[in-house]
Amino acid sequence: MTTGSTESEEIPPPRGGLSGSPRSGMREVAEAAGVAMSSVSRVLSGHPDVSPAMRTRVLKAVADLHYKPDILAQSLRRRETMTVGFVVGDISNPVVSQIVKGAELKLRDAGYTMLLTNSLVDPELDRRHIELLRQRRADGLLLLPVSEDHPPMIRALERLDIPTVVIERDLPASVGAACVFSDHRAGMDPAVEHLLDLGHRHIAFIAGQPVRATRERVASLKAVFTRRGLPPSYQVYGGSYSTEHGARITAQLLSAEAPPTAIIAGSNQIMVGALQVLSNQGVAVGRDLSFVGCDDITVAQIYRPQIAVLDRDLVALGTSAAELLLRQLRENAEADSVIMHPTRFIARPSCGPAPGSD
Amino acid sequence: MTTGSTESEEIPPPRGGLSGSPRSGMREVAEAAGVAMSSVSRVLSGHPDVSPAMRTRVLKAVADLHYKPDILAQSLRRRETMTVGFVVGDISNPVVSQIVKGAELKLRDAGYTMLLTNSLVDPELDRRHIELLRQRRADGLLLLPVSEDHPPMIRALERLDIPTVVIERDLPASVGAACVFSDHRAGMDPAVEHLLDLGHRHIAFIAGQPVRATRERVASLKAVFTRRGLPPSYQVYGGSYSTEHGARITAQLLSAEAPPTAIIAGSNQIMVGALQVLSNQGVAVGRDLSFVGCDDITVAQIYRPQIAVLDRDLVALGTSAAELLLRQLRENAEADSVIMHPTRFIARPSCGPAPGSD
Repeated sequence: MTTGSTESEEIPPPRGGLSGSPRSGMREVAEAAGVAMSSVSRVLSGHPDVSPAMRTRVLKAVADLHYKPDILAQSLRRRETMTVGFVVGDISNPVVSQIVKGAELKLRDAGYTMLLTNSLVDPELDRRHIELLRQRRADGLLLLPVSEDHPPMIRALERLDIPTVVIERDLPASVGAACVFSDHRAGMDPAVEHLLDLGHRHIAFIAGQPVRATRERVASLKAVFTRRGLPPSYQVYGGSYSTEHGARITAQLLSAEAPPTAIIAGSNQIMVGALQVLSNQGVAVGRDLSFVGCDDITVAQIYRPQIAVLDRDLVALGTSAAELLLRQLRENAEADSVIMHPTRFIARPSCGPAPGSD
Repeated sequence: MTTGSTESEEIPPPRGGLSGSPRSGMREVAEAAGVAMSSVSRVLSGHPDVSPAMRTRVLKAVADLHYKPDILAQSLRRRETMTVGFVVGDISNPVVSQIVKGAELKLRDAGYTMLLTNSLVDPELDRRHIELLRQRRADGLLLLPVSEDHPPMIRALERLDIPTVVIERDLPASVGAACVFSDHRAGMDPAVEHLLDLGHRHIAFIAGQPVRATRERVASLKAVFTRRGLPPSYQVYGGSYSTEHGARITAQLLSAEAPPTAIIAGSNQIMVGALQVLSNQGVAVGRDLSFVGCDDITVAQIYRPQIAVLDRDLVALGTSAAELLLRQLRENAEADSVIMHPTRFIARPSCGPAPGSD
């Protein structure tokens, strides 16, 4: 495809110190006019909802800065709306709001507005929202979907012709999305080692949905047990990322004939459900039972004893995702970037020696 | 304005058992075709992103149902997009996700998709999001803004020509929005009475932003003290709905010369910030200091002792808001409706007798 290739070549800006992208041209105009970049975009695209005063102000700034119309026209030709869509599977997950915050601050600084959708943990709604945001002319998409392999969603993403960044989900390469992942083994390995050091052998992992984080953590359990030459005396309980799943499995484990001596919760919602059951049943966490939670949310800090957690920098995940998207939007960067973030284990008194161990 | 008045008259549908609104016609077509209402809308509006198979399926259902094109055309003439915008001031507030959930489930059942915006507690971003959602052709708006009186936001709302429902914020009548409120005095009155019954006189209310809920709760404090013939020995500490505000004021109160014997937190974030300080300083809640929180979130249930709270049904608030909006969208109902929801006080062991009282 070479249509319009001469038009889309970068024209050096007429003023020094600029990066030369059409976006920086728009930003200078916005700053000179004292208006938002979206207002500049509206005026220059002939949007009807623009006051005469706003139009005059923006056009005066364009004239004052001696911009060649070509430079500004280039971003208009792309029909940019300065909007980014964020498809979220479950907005009620408290860690999501931190990721959203990181992305939103970064995008806002670059002049973009974010439109969020919430899929109520229904992958078919994720699919519908991807199509809707495209119709509403989002310039790019961030994705934190429920599922990694819902075929209609994958097909919708394959058809998509705008930059896309997926967070914490391993989507097929055919989707062509850049990725922001956490290195979940980096936090899980020391958590498992800590429990083994404390004498725990019978460890229950209340896992969540069959997504990348779950697979990585199960792989860590297996690897650490193998490395220590121990038989695989851990159990994995798959399910949903919900308090219900955490509460149900915890109640089941407590009433088992041979309960585990340690529980690892695979998400913050699972942790909260588990802690509700443990506190209601008066289990002395850290003595009768050791417990490792997920994500350093308030509950983990306020619970007594404080809860050891698998931790990650959620705001940084969102910031990275926005940066990857901006790079594609501004520089037509390749979509195959992957950014890997560290995770860590925070040891706290919720983990104690296994009962009966020396 | 009488333009198109004959066109917008309701035409009785050709089949029995229907409400006669164009929407129910579209829904029947969607059901017969086994597709989403948004797909019917896309096919009939000639949207380019429609597969030939989808088009055939929808047009066959239209034919099978013997619909007169007029009925369906009516909703198309209105240029409906089956999208509702939800302008949220702070998505990281955990109670917001419950309100969103209630609204979203109701709207989804009616065939609408929701687009959310998050304003990072910046009223100017609320203003920008209102304008953006209108440009993106939302059929109606739900609002849970940061501020009740940010003039540019108020002007943006006054200019708005689509149905609007505001939740928990008291906006000027000129805005023309329907309202969903909580009766905050219904929960605050018994909380204050409970503390007075326990002998507390020196009560600190860590209030949040100067919005309706805050005014109502301060009015309740005043009214209950007056009713009991007591001098107004309470203090109100205004600020933001944030953990930082809750933590800062709590630390300040604990180090005061004459600390209060009871604290009431004016939001869930304020409660969390206060509890972090109380637990870090080892304050025996319910004995050294009584505490009333806000919204029955997990932290209140898991803390030991459990925290008494001012409670409201958040999902119901969202459901009501969606219902009010749907009524305006479907029946052109008047915009001056107000729905008031109850609140209640849940007494828990975080409140005990005032130290030194008999």
